Amino acid sequence: MGATTAFPGAAGTEARLPDVEITSAFWTRYINLVIDKVLPYQWAVLNGEQEVDLPPDPGGNPVDSYDKLNHSIRNLKVAAGEQDAPFHGMPFQDSDVYKWLEAVAYALHHRDDPQLRRLADDVVDLIARAQREDGYLDTFFQIQWKDRVFKRIQQSHELYSMGHYIEAAVAYWQATGNEKALEIAKRMAACIEANFGDGETQVHGADGHPEIELALARLAEATGEERYAMMGRWFLNIRGQDPDFYDNQNRADGWDRDFFSMIRDFPRTYYQAAEPIADQRDAQGHAVRVAYLCTGLAHIARLTGDASLAESAERLWNSIVRRRMYITGQIGSTHVGESFTYDYDLPNDTMYGETCASVGMSFFARQMLALRAKGEYGDVLEKELFNGALAGMSLDGTHFYYVNPLEADPAASAGTPDKGHVLTHRAGWFACACCPSNLARLITSIDRYIYTVMADGTILAHQFIASKATFANGVRIEQTGDYPWDGEISWSVSNPNETPVRFGVRVPAWSAGQYTLTVEGEQVTDGVEDGFVYIEVPAGADRFAVVLGLNMGVRLVRASNRVREDAGKVAVMRGPLVYCAEECDNEGPLWLYSISGATPTEAGYRYDPDLLGGVGVVTKAAVRAQEDPCDGPLYLSAEERGISELAELRMVPYYTWANRADGQMTVWLNRS
Amino acid sequence: MGATTAFPGAAGTEARLPDVEITSAFWTRYINLVIDKVLPYQWAVLNGEQEVDLPPDPGGNPVDSYDKLNHSIRNLKVAAGEQDAPFHGMPFQDSDVYKWLEAVAYALHHRDDPQLRRLADDVVDLIARAQREDGYLDTFFQIQWKDRVFKRIQQSHELYSMGHYIEAAVAYWQATGNEKALEIAKRMAACIEANFGDGETQVHGADGHPEIELALARLAEATGEERYAMMGRWFLNIRGQDPDFYDNQNRADGWDRDFFSMIRDFPRTYYQAAEPIADQRDAQGHAVRVAYLCTGLAHIARLTGDASLAESAERLWNSIVRRRMYITGQIGSTHVGESFTYDYDLPNDTMYGETCASVGMSFFARQMLALRAKGEYGDVLEKELFNGALAGMSLDGTHFYYVNPLEADPAASAGTPDKGHVLTHRAGWFACACCPSNLARLITSIDRYIYTVMADGTILAHQFIASKATFANGVRIEQTGDYPWDGEISWSVSNPNETPVRFGVRVPAWSAGQYTLTVEGEQVTDGVEDGFVYIEVPAGADRFAVVLGLNMGVRLVRASNRVREDAGKVAVMRGPLVYCAEECDNEGPLWLYSISGATPTEAGYRYDPDLLGGVGVVTKAAVRAQEDPCDGPLYLSAEERGISELAELRMVPYYTWANRADGQMTVWLNRS
Repeated sequence: MGATTAFPGAAGTEARLPDVEITSAFWTRYINLVIDKVLPYQWAVLNGEQEVDLPPDPGGNPVDSYDKLNHSIRNLKVAAGEQDAPFHGMPFQDSDVYKWLEAVAYALHHRDDPQLRRLADDVVDLIARAQREDGYLDTFFQIQWKDRVFKRIQQSHELYSMGHYIEAAVAYWQATGNEKALEIAKRMAACIEANFGDGETQVHGADGHPEIELALARLAEATGEERYAMMGRWFLNIRGQDPDFYDNQNRADGWDRDFFSMIRDFPRTYYQAAEPIADQRDAQGHAVRVAYLCTGLAHIARLTGDASLAESAERLWNSIVRRRMYITGQIGSTHVGESFTYDYDLPNDTMYGETCASVGMSFFARQMLALRAKGEYGDVLEKELFNGALAGMSLDGTHFYYVNPLEADPAASAGTPDKGHVLTHRAGWFACACCPSNLARLITSIDRYIYTVMADGTILAHQFIASKATFANGVRIEQTGDYPWDGEISWSVSNPNETPVRFGVRVPAWSAGQYTLTVEGEQVTDGVEDGFVYIEVPAGADRFAVVLGLNMGVRLVRASNRVREDAGKVAVMRGPLVYCAEECDNEGPLWLYSISGATPTEAGYRYDPDLLGGVGVVTKAAVRAQEDPCDGPLYLSAEERGISELAELRMVPYYTWANRADGQMTVWLNRS
Repeated sequence: MGATTAFPGAAGTEARLPDVEITSAFWTRYINLVIDKVLPYQWAVLNGEQEVDLPPDPGGNPVDSYDKLNHSIRNLKVAAGEQDAPFHGMPFQDSDVYKWLEAVAYALHHRDDPQLRRLADDVVDLIARAQREDGYLDTFFQIQWKDRVFKRIQQSHELYSMGHYIEAAVAYWQATGNEKALEIAKRMAACIEANFGDGETQVHGADGHPEIELALARLAEATGEERYAMMGRWFLNIRGQDPDFYDNQNRADGWDRDFFSMIRDFPRTYYQAAEPIADQRDAQGHAVRVAYLCTGLAHIARLTGDASLAESAERLWNSIVRRRMYITGQIGSTHVGESFTYDYDLPNDTMYGETCASVGMSFFARQMLALRAKGEYGDVLEKELFNGALAGMSLDGTHFYYVNPLEADPAASAGTPDKGHVLTHRAGWFACACCPSNLARLITSIDRYIYTVMADGTILAHQFIASKATFANGVRIEQTGDYPWDGEISWSVSNPNETPVRFGVRVPAWSAGQYTLTVEGEQVTDGVEDGFVYIEVPAGADRFAVVLGLNMGVRLVRASNRVREDAGKVAVMRGPLVYCAEECDNEGPLWLYSISGATPTEAGYRYDPDLLGGVGVVTKAAVRAQEDPCDGPLYLSAEERGISELAELRMVPYYTWANRADGQMTVWLNRS
C-alpha cells in the first residue's frame, strides 16, 4: 500500500465530536419519524415482510425483477449457509442492510431502545456468519458468482457494499461498543488490503462506485490506525491512472458478462476514472459517485495531510458549487447516467437531483469544514439539509423521492419519456433502494452536523439546530431558537477549562451584512472571516451568551444569467429555505404567473402551524395570464396578448412539496 | 380482402394533375441541387462508392455497423443471386434505393437525362431479377432470414420497403412509361394480397411502420384498379383491432429474436396499433409513422368514399395541427421513440422534428386538400415546404438533418445526453438514411404540390410557386412572382373549354384580412371561403389575369400560452418563412436578448442577394443583458439586475440555419 507517512488525523475531528442532544422541534420531529416509521418499515422491507410497489428505475438501470418482496436479509442468511435460495435483488443490495444498521446506530443515540439494539446486534451476528474466512463479504458474489470476486469492479460494487458495512460498523461500535461489528470491518479491510495494491497479483484499480475511500477514512479515524487512511489514499490515487483498467478487466472476465450492461459503455467520466483525480478539472459523471469520492478525498486529505488531495477536493467543490448545483443544493443535471453535464446546464424539469447526491454533498461539505473553516461549506450543508436532501422524504416518513425536480407537471411525467423519471408523488420504495436509507442515516446523525472542532480546538458552530452539546474537553453549549422559522439563534457556552475557547459562528452568505451578533449582551461589529465570526469564550465562562440575529425577510433570488434555464426567472427564499409554488395552492398552469423581483413586505410571510406539519407560508402579488382556449389557434399574432389578472401566489418550502394533491410544482417563476 | 364497393377515385385527383414546368427561381435552384448534387451523391453511396461518416443514430436505434460504406445495391445483387455477400445495413435499407428511384422519376420530368434514365432502367431490371417468383422482395429476408418472411411484422419493415418500391414504380412508370417497373409493383401487391387478409392462413395484421397503405392508394389511383384501394383499406382497418397481434407474432417467431430489440417493448401507440384507427383520438407514437398512416388514410378515404376513414384523417389532422405541431411545421416532441408526446408539449431544444416527418406532413396535407378544399391544409403544406422540410438539407445539397431543433447550442449537444441527438451541423449521411432521399423526392416532385384539381373540376391554386401548368382539359396557367421574397403572385389562366373553370386562390391565414385580389384588373372583395377565394374563369378565356397581393410585413408571432416552452416568447415571421437568430450574426448567449412584440417597421427587412444563396434578412431592435461573470455567484439577489444594452438582432430564415459557423440558434426569443 505504499510507504506510510505521518498521521496527523489519528485523533482528529471525528474523535472530538461532542455528545449532542437535539432539542430543535424541527429536527426532533424528523428524527422521531425515522425511528418510529422509517426504520421499522425498512426492516420489514429488508426481511421480505413488507410488499413494495416499485416504480421503474429512474436512472434507467436494468432491474432484474420488480418483485414486490425484497430479500436482503435472506441473501445474508444464504451466504451464511443457513438457508437455501437464489440471490435476489440488485448486486449491491447488501448495502441497504448496512445503511439501515448505520441509521440504527445513530437512532440509538437519540433513544436507546433495547429491542432495536438487540435486533441490530443480531444483524451484526448474521453478518459475521455470512463473512468469508478471509474477510470478504458480498452475498451477490458468494451466492451467485464465487469465481468472479474482484474481477469486474467497474460494475461489481463489492467495495461499495463493504464500504457501507465499514461505515455502519464504525457508527454501531461508537454507539454501542459492539466490538464484533468493528472486528468484521477490520477483517474486511484486511481482505481488501490483501487483494488491492501495487503487488503483481493484486488488483490495480478502484471500485466503479466510490465509497470505500470514505469508509476507510472513517475506519482510520475511529481506530486511529493509519494503514486504513493509506489504503484510502491508494484507492484515490489509483483512480484514472490507467484509463483502460476497467475495459481490460471486463475483457478478462468476459466482455458480455455484465452485471449492468448499459454501464459498461458509459464514458469513463461516469466513474471519475478518465484521468487521475489531480487532473480532473470538473465534476463529471454520476453525481452520487462524485459526492462520495469527494467526501473521501477531503477526509483522507485531512487524515494524511496530503496537499494535492486537498487541492483536488477544493477544485471539485468549486466546480460543483459555482457552476453545477441547483439553488436547493441538488446535483445531477441529467437522468442519463444520473450525471453532471456541463457548466451552467441546470434544467429544472428534466434534471435528476438524486436524494443520495444531496446526502453525499452533505458528507462532502462536512468534511470540507473539517479541512478548512469556510462559511461556504456550512452554507451548502445547510442548503442540503433544509432543501435538497430533506425533500427526499414525505412528511409522514413513508414515501421517498429518488429524483428531485425543481419543476414538475403530472401531465409531463405521464406524457413524455423525457420526463418519465420525474415522479410527482413519492414512491414507497425503489428497486435500487439507496435513497431512503441514505436519508435515514443523515437525519438520525444530524447531531454530528452542528459543530466541527478544528485541529486547533476552535469550535465552529455552523448549523443552527437547537441542541445541548458536551465536548470532550468539558465545554458545554446549549443552542436555542426556532430555526428555520425564526432567525434568532442563541448559544450558551460553558467553558470549565483554564484556557479560553475560540468559538466560530457562521454568518450565512444569504444574511451577510444583514445580521446582528451580541456577545454577553454587547453588540459585536467585528468583521466576518471567511463566513465565520470568531469569539473568545473565556476560561471558566458559565453560560456565556452569544446571540445571532439573521435577516429572515423573504428574499428574491435569481441565477447567474449563464444559466439558460433560469434566465428571466426568480426564486423565493426565506432563511435557508427555498420556496415553491404548487398547483394545489395556485390555479395552474403555473407558468402563467409572473412576479416582480422586488423584495416583498413583512406581510408576505406567515407561519401556519396547521399546514404541512407547521410551515412558514409566503404570499406574493403576481400577475396571471388568462389561459388561452383549448381549441384556439396554436400560433397567433404577438399583438393578441390576451388578458392578465392580478393574482396572489402562495408558496411553501420546497422540502414540503408533493405532500398534498398531485399537481404542478415550480421553484423558478417568471419575472415580470 | 372483403367485398368491393364503388370506386369513386378511379379517375381521381392524381390523374388530373397538370403537367408543370417550374420557373420559380427559389425552387429551380433546389431542384437543380437535387439533380446535380444529391442524386449522384446518393447513387454513389448506395453503391458503396462513397464513404460516409455516420453520426450516432438520433433515435437511439441500435445500428449493427457504422461501416462507412453502404451496400444497398449490392444487397439487391445478392438477392438476385448475382453476387455472394452478407446482407449489409438496416433491415429496411432497400427503401433507400426505391426513394432514389422515385426521386429520379420526378427529376426526369424536369430534365430528361438519358444517362440517368438508363441508370434507373438498369436499377429496375436489377430489382426485377431480385424479386422472388411470388412477387416478394426484401433483400434482408431473402439473404438472411428466408424462413421469417412476414413473421415479425412489428419490426420487419417488409411492407414498408415494398410500399416504397410501389411508390417509386408508380412515379417511374408515369414519368417514363417503363412497364416493367409497374409490373414488379403489381406482382408485389399480388404477393401481399396472397399473404395478408382475413383468410385462415393469412396474416391478420399491418406492418409496424405504415407506408403500404399510401403506396397501395397510389397504385390504385395510377392503375384504376380498385382492389389495391380495398387492400389499403383492409390494412387501415386491421390496425389495432387485436392489440396483442404483434406480441403474439413475436412470441411465435421467438420472443428475443428481434430485429430492433428496443422497439419490441415500446408502447403499442408507437405503432399506432393500441386501438383501431376510428378510436384513436390523438396523434400518438412515432411521428413519421403517424404522418404516413394519415396520408394513406386520407387518400384511401377519398378513393373509397369511406366517411369513417375521412373522419379519422380529419381528427388526427386536428390533433397534430392544433396541439402538437411546431411553428415551422415539425412534429415529434421527443427523440425517445421519435414520437409525439402530449398536447401542447413542444420543447424547442430536446425535440425531434424529423425531416421525414415534415415530408410526411406534406404528403398528408396534399391528400387532405384533395379530400376537401380547406385553406388550412395549404397553409400547413406551405409551412412544411418552406420551413420544417427544407431545413433538412444544407444549401449546397451535401449535408442533411435528421433532427431539426428550434433551439440549438453546440455546448448542449456536446455536453448533455439529453440533447446529444441534436446536431448543430448537418451530417453527410445516416445509418438510417431515410431523410435525405425523402427530401430529394419531395423537392423533385414539387410540381405536384402547386395545384389540386377537385372532383368537380375546381382548380385549387394553393402553393405560390412560379410555374407553367397545362391541365388535361387544356387549361393552361402561368404563375409568376418572386415568392417567398415578394408577396405579389399572378396567375394567367387560359381556358380553351366551352365551360367556365372554377379557380380557387388560397389566402394564407397569416395574410387573412390583409390581402388584395384583382381579377382582370378589378379589385375583388368577395369573402374567403374556408381559406380560398373562388373565381370563375370564363369559357374561352385567354390569359385571364388573377393577381394576389399578400401582406409581406415582418410579423411577430406567439404561441398559445398552453405551450409552456414558448410562454413569454415571440417568433419572427415574414410571409411563409419562420426566422431564427444565429450566433454567427449575434453575440451569444442568445437567451440574453429580448425583443418587443410590436410589429417592426419596413426598415427591418432587406433582401440580401449575397447571403445564404439570397435571403431576406430581418433586423430588429433588442435589449441584451450583459453576461454575468464566469466566476461570479451562481445565485444572487434578484435586485442585482445587471446591465442591459440596446442591441440589434439579425435574423435569417430558419431553413438556412447551420450553413455558416457552428453556434447557437434559436427561433423563439424572449419577449421584453
